[in-house]
Amino acid sequence: MTPEDLKPLVRTIPDFPKPGILFRDVTTLMGHGEGFAAAVGMMADKVQACEGQAIAGIEARGFIFGAAIAAKLAMPFIPVRKPGKLPVPVLAIDYALEYGTDTLEVDPGAVVDGSRIVLIDDLLATGGTALAACELLRRAGGVVAEALFLVDLPDLGGAERLRRAGVAVEALLDYPGH
Amino acid sequence: MTPEDLKPLVRTIPDFPKPGILFRDVTTLMGHGEGFAAAVGMMADKVQACEGQAIAGIEARGFIFGAAIAAKLAMPFIPVRKPGKLPVPVLAIDYALEYGTDTLEVDPGAVVDGSRIVLIDDLLATGGTALAACELLRRAGGVVAEALFLVDLPDLGGAERLRRAGVAVEALLDYPGH
Repeated sequence: MTPEDLKPLVRTIPDFPKPGILFRDVTTLMGHGEGFAAAVGMMADKVQACEGQAIAGIEARGFIFGAAIAAKLAMPFIPVRKPGKLPVPVLAIDYALEYGTDTLEVDPGAVVDGSRIVLIDDLLATGGTALAACELLRRAGGVVAEALFLVDLPDLGGAERLRRAGVAVEALLDYPGH
Repeated sequence: MTPEDLKPLVRTIPDFPKPGILFRDVTTLMGHGEGFAAAVGMMADKVQACEGQAIAGIEARGFIFGAAIAAKLAMPFIPVRKPGKLPVPVLAIDYALEYGTDTLEVDPGAVVDGSRIVLIDDLLATGGTALAACELLRRAGGVVAEALFLVDLPDLGGAERLRRAGVAVEALLDYPGH
Protein backbone atom coordinates (compact mmCIF):
# COMPACT_ATOMS: atom_id res chain seq x y z
CA MET A 1 0.00 0.00 0.00
CA THR A 2 1.00 3.61 -0.62
CA PRO A 3 -0.35 6.74 1.07
CA GLU A 4 -2.56 7.31 -1.99
CA ASP A 5 -4.21 3.91 -1.36
CA LEU A 6 -5.24 5.17 2.08
CA LYS A 7 -7.06 8.27 0.87
CA PRO A 8 -10.26 6.47 -0.18
CA LEU A 9 -10.45 5.04 3.36
CA VAL A 10 -10.81 8.53 4.89
CA ARG A 11 -14.48 9.57 4.94
CA THR A 12 -15.37 13.16 4.06
CA ILE A 13 -18.33 14.67 5.91
CA PRO A 14 -19.59 17.99 4.55
CA ASP A 15 -20.67 20.80 6.88
CA PHE A 16 -19.21 19.33 10.09
CA PRO A 17 -18.72 20.71 12.69
CA LYS A 18 -20.19 23.76 10.95
CA PRO A 19 -21.46 24.75 7.49
CA GLY A 20 -18.77 25.03 4.83
CA ILE A 21 -16.28 22.71 6.56
CA LEU A 22 -15.33 19.41 4.95
CA PHE A 23 -14.54 17.15 7.89
CA ARG A 24 -11.93 14.46 7.16
CA ASP A 25 -13.01 11.51 9.31
CA VAL A 26 -10.18 9.06 9.92
CA THR A 27 -12.30 6.61 11.94
CA THR A 28 -13.21 4.86 8.68
CA LEU A 29 -9.51 4.26 8.01
CA MET A 30 -9.10 2.81 11.52
CA GLY A 31 -12.04 0.56 10.76
CA HIS A 32 -10.19 -0.98 7.81
CA GLY A 33 -7.75 -3.45 9.37
CA GLU A 34 -5.23 -3.59 6.53
CA GLY A 35 -5.43 0.15 5.93
CA PHE A 36 -4.95 1.01 9.59
CA ALA A 37 -1.95 -1.33 9.91
CA ALA A 38 -0.45 0.12 6.71
CA ALA A 39 -0.88 3.70 7.94
CA VAL A 40 0.75 2.83 11.26
CA GLY A 41 3.60 1.09 9.44
CA MET A 42 4.27 4.08 7.16
CA MET A 43 4.18 6.49 10.10
CA ALA A 44 6.53 4.20 12.08
CA ASP A 45 9.00 4.33 9.16
CA LYS A 46 9.00 8.13 9.41
CA VAL A 47 9.65 7.96 13.17
CA GLN A 48 12.70 5.82 12.51
CA ALA A 49 13.89 8.07 9.69
CA CYS A 50 13.99 11.08 12.05
CA GLU A 51 15.65 9.00 14.78
CA GLY A 52 12.78 9.31 17.24
CA GLN A 53 13.28 7.63 20.63
CA ALA A 54 9.80 8.09 22.14
CA ILE A 55 6.26 8.78 20.92
CA ALA A 56 3.87 11.35 22.36
CA GLY A 57 0.17 11.24 21.43
CA ILE A 58 -2.44 13.95 21.94
CA GLU A 59 -5.67 12.87 23.66
CA ALA A 60 -7.81 11.29 22.30
CA ARG A 61 -7.40 10.41 18.60
CA GLY A 62 -3.64 10.93 18.78
CA PHE A 63 -3.59 8.06 21.28
CA ILE A 64 -4.88 5.73 18.55
CA PHE A 65 -2.09 6.33 16.05
CA GLY A 66 0.59 7.21 18.60
CA ALA A 67 0.20 4.11 20.76
CA ALA A 68 0.04 1.80 17.76
CA ILE A 69 3.29 3.26 16.41
CA ALA A 70 4.99 3.13 19.83
CA ALA A 71 4.06 -0.53 20.37
CA LYS A 72 5.22 -1.44 16.86
CA LEU A 73 8.62 0.15 17.50
CA ALA A 74 8.80 -0.89 21.21
CA MET A 75 9.23 2.78 22.10
CA PRO A 76 7.93 4.60 25.18
CA PHE A 77 4.48 6.17 24.74
CA ILE A 78 3.86 9.53 26.44
CA PRO A 79 0.20 10.54 26.69
CA VAL A 80 -0.42 14.29 26.34
CA ARG A 81 -3.66 14.58 28.26
CA LYS A 82 -6.64 16.81 28.87
CA PRO A 83 -6.67 18.42 32.33
CA GLY A 84 -7.29 16.37 35.46
CA LYS A 85 -6.62 12.92 33.96
CA LEU A 86 -3.13 12.16 35.26
CA PRO A 87 -2.81 10.90 38.83
CA VAL A 88 0.51 12.65 39.48
CA PRO A 89 1.74 16.26 39.65
CA VAL A 90 1.82 17.47 36.04
CA LEU A 91 3.34 20.08 33.80
CA ALA A 92 0.49 21.99 32.15
CA ILE A 93 0.15 24.47 29.31
CA ASP A 94 -2.80 26.70 28.44
CA TYR A 95 -3.38 27.66 24.83
CA ALA A 96 -5.87 29.70 22.86
CA LEU A 97 -8.70 28.18 20.84
CA GLU A 98 -10.93 30.02 18.38
CA TYR A 99 -13.19 30.77 21.36
CA GLY A 100 -11.67 30.50 24.83
CA THR A 101 -8.69 28.44 25.97
CA ASP A 102 -7.79 24.83 26.63
CA THR A 103 -5.12 23.03 28.62
CA LEU A 104 -2.82 20.05 28.01
CA GLU A 105 -0.94 18.13 30.70
CA VAL A 106 1.98 15.73 30.78
CA ASP A 107 3.70 13.73 33.52
CA PRO A 108 7.20 15.26 33.54
CA GLY A 109 8.53 11.93 34.83
CA ALA A 110 7.47 10.35 31.51
CA VAL A 111 9.90 12.55 29.53
CA VAL A 112 13.55 11.50 29.55
CA ASP A 113 15.79 14.56 29.49
CA GLY A 114 17.06 15.21 25.98
CA SER A 115 15.21 12.30 24.37
CA ARG A 116 14.01 12.73 20.78
CA ILE A 117 10.21 12.67 20.88
CA VAL A 118 7.92 12.38 17.87
CA LEU A 119 4.55 14.03 18.49
CA ILE A 120 1.66 12.19 16.83
CA ASP A 121 -1.88 13.29 16.06
CA ASP A 122 -4.40 12.18 13.49
CA LEU A 123 -5.01 15.54 11.81
CA LEU A 124 -3.25 18.88 11.50
CA ALA A 125 -5.53 21.89 11.01
CA THR A 126 -4.53 25.27 12.50
CA GLY A 127 -1.90 23.61 14.66
CA GLY A 128 -2.77 25.30 17.95
CA THR A 129 -3.05 22.09 19.94
CA ALA A 130 0.04 20.52 18.37
CA LEU A 131 2.11 23.65 19.00
CA ALA A 132 1.07 23.67 22.67
CA ALA A 133 1.94 19.97 22.96
CA CYS A 134 5.41 20.57 21.45
CA GLU A 135 6.05 23.45 23.84
CA LEU A 136 4.93 21.28 26.79
CA LEU A 137 7.25 18.42 25.78
CA ARG A 138 10.15 20.87 25.47
CA ARG A 139 9.45 22.33 28.92
CA ALA A 140 9.46 18.76 30.26
CA GLY A 141 13.00 18.33 28.92
CA GLY A 142 12.34 16.56 25.61
CA VAL A 143 13.54 17.38 22.11
CA VAL A 144 10.72 17.39 19.56
CA ALA A 145 12.25 15.45 16.67
CA GLU A 146 9.17 15.90 14.52
CA ALA A 147 5.40 16.41 14.59
CA LEU A 148 3.84 13.65 12.50
CA PHE A 149 0.22 13.48 11.35
CA LEU A 150 -1.89 11.11 9.34
CA VAL A 151 -3.66 14.02 7.61
CA ASP A 152 -2.57 17.61 6.96
CA LEU A 153 -4.95 20.34 5.81
CA PRO A 154 -2.21 22.69 4.56
CA ASP A 155 -4.52 25.61 3.75
CA LEU A 156 -5.26 26.01 7.46
CA GLY A 157 -1.63 26.90 8.10
CA GLY A 158 -0.78 24.48 10.90
CA ALA A 159 2.38 23.07 9.29
CA GLU A 160 3.64 26.58 8.54
CA ARG A 161 2.95 27.65 12.14
CA LEU A 162 4.77 24.63 13.61
CA ARG A 163 7.77 25.13 11.31
CA ARG A 164 8.02 28.79 12.38
CA ALA A 165 8.30 27.46 15.95
CA GLY A 166 11.21 25.24 14.90
CA VAL A 167 9.24 21.99 14.70
CA ALA A 168 9.77 19.65 11.73
CA VAL A 169 6.43 18.51 10.29
CA GLU A 170 5.38 15.53 8.20
CA ALA A 171 2.05 14.01 7.21
CA LEU A 172 1.10 10.90 5.30
CA LEU A 173 -1.86 12.47 3.47
CA ASP A 174 -2.63 16.03 2.57
CA TYR A 175 -5.79 17.67 1.35
CA PRO A 176 -4.98 21.03 -0.27
CA GLY A 177 -8.08 23.18 -0.46
CA HIS A 178 -9.51 20.76 2.13
CA MET B 1 8.64 -11.39 29.21
CA THR B 2 5.75 -12.82 31.24
CA PRO B 3 2.81 -10.92 32.76
CA GLU B 4 4.62 -11.04 36.13
CA ASP B 5 7.52 -9.12 34.57
CA LEU B 6 5.09 -6.33 33.73
CA LYS B 7 3.79 -5.80 37.27
CA PRO B 8 6.78 -3.76 38.49
CA LEU B 9 6.16 -1.40 35.54
CA VAL B 10 2.70 -0.44 36.88
CA ARG B 11 2.99 2.44 39.36
CA THR B 12 0.86 2.36 42.50
CA ILE B 13 -0.37 5.71 43.78
CA PRO B 14 -1.94 5.68 47.26
CA ASP B 15 -5.03 7.73 48.07
CA PHE B 16 -5.96 8.60 44.47
CA PRO B 17 -8.56 9.66 43.44
CA LYS B 18 -9.63 9.56 47.11
CA PRO B 19 -8.24 8.44 50.48
CA GLY B 20 -7.94 4.67 50.90
CA ILE B 21 -7.78 3.89 47.16
CA LEU B 22 -4.60 2.41 45.68
CA PHE B 23 -4.56 3.70 42.11
CA ARG B 24 -2.86 1.38 39.60
CA ASP B 25 -1.28 3.74 37.07
CA VAL B 26 -0.51 2.01 33.78
CA THR B 27 1.06 5.08 32.17
CA THR B 28 4.42 4.01 33.58
CA LEU B 29 4.09 0.69 31.74
CA MET B 30 3.32 2.56 28.49
CA GLY B 31 6.43 4.61 29.13
CA HIS B 32 8.60 1.48 29.08
CA GLY B 33 9.00 0.64 25.38
CA GLU B 34 9.79 -3.05 25.75
CA GLY B 35 7.18 -3.53 28.47
CA PHE B 36 4.46 -1.77 26.48
CA ALA B 37 5.22 -3.81 23.35
CA ALA B 38 5.23 -7.02 25.40
CA ALA B 39 1.87 -6.21 27.01
CA VAL B 40 0.37 -5.45 23.59
CA GLY B 41 1.80 -8.71 22.21
CA MET B 42 0.36 -10.81 25.05
CA MET B 43 -3.05 -9.15 24.73
CA ALA B 44 -2.96 -9.69 20.94
CA ASP B 45 -2.34 -13.42 21.55
CA LYS B 46 -5.51 -13.52 23.67
CA VAL B 47 -7.49 -11.80 20.91
CA GLN B 48 -6.39 -14.47 18.45
CA ALA B 49 -7.13 -17.28 20.95
CA CYS B 50 -10.77 -16.16 21.24
CA GLU B 51 -11.04 -15.71 17.45
CA GLY B 52 -11.65 -11.97 17.61
CA GLN B 53 -12.21 -10.22 14.27
CA ALA B 54 -12.26 -6.57 15.40
CA ILE B 55 -11.08 -4.52 18.38
CA ALA B 56 -13.13 -1.93 20.26
CA GLY B 57 -11.40 0.47 22.66
CA ILE B 58 -13.03 2.67 25.30
CA GLU B 59 -12.03 6.37 25.29
CA ALA B 60 -9.40 7.36 26.28
CA ARG B 61 -6.91 4.89 27.81
CA GLY B 62 -8.62 1.95 26.08
CA PHE B 63 -7.61 3.61 22.79
CA ILE B 64 -3.95 3.18 23.74
CA PHE B 65 -4.01 -0.58 24.20
CA GLY B 66 -6.86 -1.26 21.79
CA ALA B 67 -5.39 0.56 18.81
CA ALA B 68 -1.94 -0.94 19.36
CA ILE B 69 -3.44 -4.45 19.38
CA ALA B 70 -5.62 -3.75 16.33
CA ALA B 71 -2.68 -2.42 14.29
CA LYS B 72 -0.52 -5.37 15.30
CA LEU B 73 -3.18 -7.82 14.11
CA ALA B 74 -4.30 -5.68 11.11
CA MET B 75 -7.83 -5.76 12.53
CA PRO B 76 -10.46 -3.00 12.41
CA PHE B 77 -10.40 -0.62 15.38
CA ILE B 78 -13.76 0.64 16.65
CA PRO B 79 -13.56 3.65 18.99
CA VAL B 80 -16.19 3.66 21.77
CA ARG B 81 -16.39 7.37 22.44
CA LYS B 82 -17.56 9.94 24.91
CA PRO B 83 -20.61 11.93 23.78
CA GLY B 84 -20.39 14.43 20.94
CA LYS B 85 -17.08 13.26 19.47
CA LEU B 86 -18.22 11.30 16.42
CA PRO B 87 -19.14 13.28 13.30
CA VAL B 88 -21.91 10.89 12.22
CA PRO B 89 -25.27 9.74 13.64
CA VAL B 90 -24.41 7.44 16.54
CA LEU B 91 -25.82 4.69 18.70
CA ALA B 92 -25.61 5.85 22.33
CA ILE B 93 -26.03 4.24 25.73
CA ASP B 94 -26.43 5.92 29.12
CA TYR B 95 -25.14 4.16 32.22
CA ALA B 96 -24.98 4.82 35.93
CA LEU B 97 -21.85 5.99 37.71
CA GLU B 98 -21.34 6.17 41.46
CA TYR B 99 -22.76 9.68 41.23
CA GLY B 100 -24.81 10.56 38.16
CA THR B 101 -24.70 9.01 34.71
CA ASP B 102 -22.44 8.95 31.69
CA THR B 103 -22.86 8.14 28.00
CA LEU B 104 -20.89 6.16 25.42
CA GLU B 105 -21.34 6.40 21.66
CA VAL B 106 -20.37 4.29 18.67
CA ASP B 107 -20.71 4.70 14.91
CA PRO B 108 -23.04 1.81 14.01
CA GLY B 109 -21.46 1.74 10.53
CA ALA B 110 -18.17 0.73 12.18
CA VAL B 111 -19.66 -2.55 13.46
CA VAL B 112 -19.97 -5.37 10.95
CA ASP B 113 -23.10 -7.44 11.66
CA GLY B 114 -22.20 -10.61 13.56
CA SER B 115 -18.47 -9.87 13.74
CA ARG B 116 -16.61 -11.08 16.84
CA ILE B 117 -15.41 -7.97 18.69
CA VAL B 118 -12.91 -7.92 21.55
CA LEU B 119 -13.49 -4.97 23.88
CA ILE B 120 -10.26 -3.53 25.30
CA ASP B 121 -9.65 -1.25 28.24
CA ASP B 122 -6.65 -0.69 30.46
CA LEU B 123 -8.25 -1.45 33.81
CA LEU B 124 -11.34 -3.29 35.09
CA ALA B 125 -12.76 -1.98 38.37
CA THR B 126 -16.54 -2.12 38.96
CA GLY B 127 -17.16 -2.82 35.28
CA GLY B 128 -19.92 -0.27 34.72
CA THR B 129 -18.28 1.37 31.73
CA ALA B 130 -17.21 -1.93 30.16
CA LEU B 131 -20.67 -3.42 30.57
CA ALA B 132 -22.25 -0.41 28.87
CA ALA B 133 -19.72 -0.66 26.03
CA CYS B 134 -20.51 -4.37 25.53
CA GLU B 135 -24.24 -3.65 25.44
CA LEU B 136 -23.67 -0.85 22.92
CA LEU B 137 -21.59 -3.09 20.64
CA ARG B 138 -24.29 -5.78 20.79
CA ARG B 139 -27.02 -3.26 19.91
CA ALA B 140 -24.87 -2.21 16.95
CA GLY B 141 -24.93 -5.82 15.69
CA GLY B 142 -21.61 -7.13 17.01
CA VAL B 143 -20.85 -10.25 19.03
CA VAL B 144 -18.66 -9.52 22.07
CA ALA B 145 -16.10 -12.33 21.89
CA GLU B 146 -14.40 -11.18 25.07
CA ALA B 147 -13.65 -8.16 27.26
CA LEU B 148 -9.89 -7.96 27.70
CA PHE B 149 -8.03 -5.75 30.17
CA LEU B 150 -4.44 -5.09 31.07
CA VAL B 151 -5.32 -4.93 34.80
CA ASP B 152 -8.19 -6.45 36.79
CA LEU B 153 -9.05 -5.43 40.36
CA PRO B 154 -11.13 -8.54 41.12
CA ASP B 155 -12.33 -7.39 44.56
CA LEU B 156 -14.30 -4.60 42.89
CA GLY B 157 -16.49 -7.18 41.15
CA GLY B 158 -16.27 -6.02 37.55
CA ALA B 159 -15.31 -9.40 36.08
CA GLU B 160 -18.12 -11.10 37.97
CA ARG B 161 -20.59 -8.48 36.76
CA LEU B 162 -19.52 -8.85 33.12
CA ARG B 163 -19.67 -12.65 33.28
CA ARG B 164 -23.22 -12.48 34.68
CA ALA B 165 -24.09 -10.47 31.56
CA GLY B 166 -22.68 -13.25 29.38
CA VAL B 167 -19.37 -11.56 28.55
CA ALA B 168 -16.14 -13.59 28.71
CA VAL B 169 -13.45 -11.69 30.64
CA GLU B 170 -9.66 -11.89 30.68
CA ALA B 171 -6.89 -9.72 32.09
CA LEU B 172 -3.13 -9.88 31.89
CA LEU B 173 -2.51 -8.73 35.49
CA ASP B 174 -4.68 -8.91 38.57
CA TYR B 175 -4.37 -7.23 41.93
CA PRO B 176 -6.45 -9.10 44.52
CA GLY B 177 -7.13 -6.92 47.54
CA HIS B 178 -6.11 -4.04 45.19
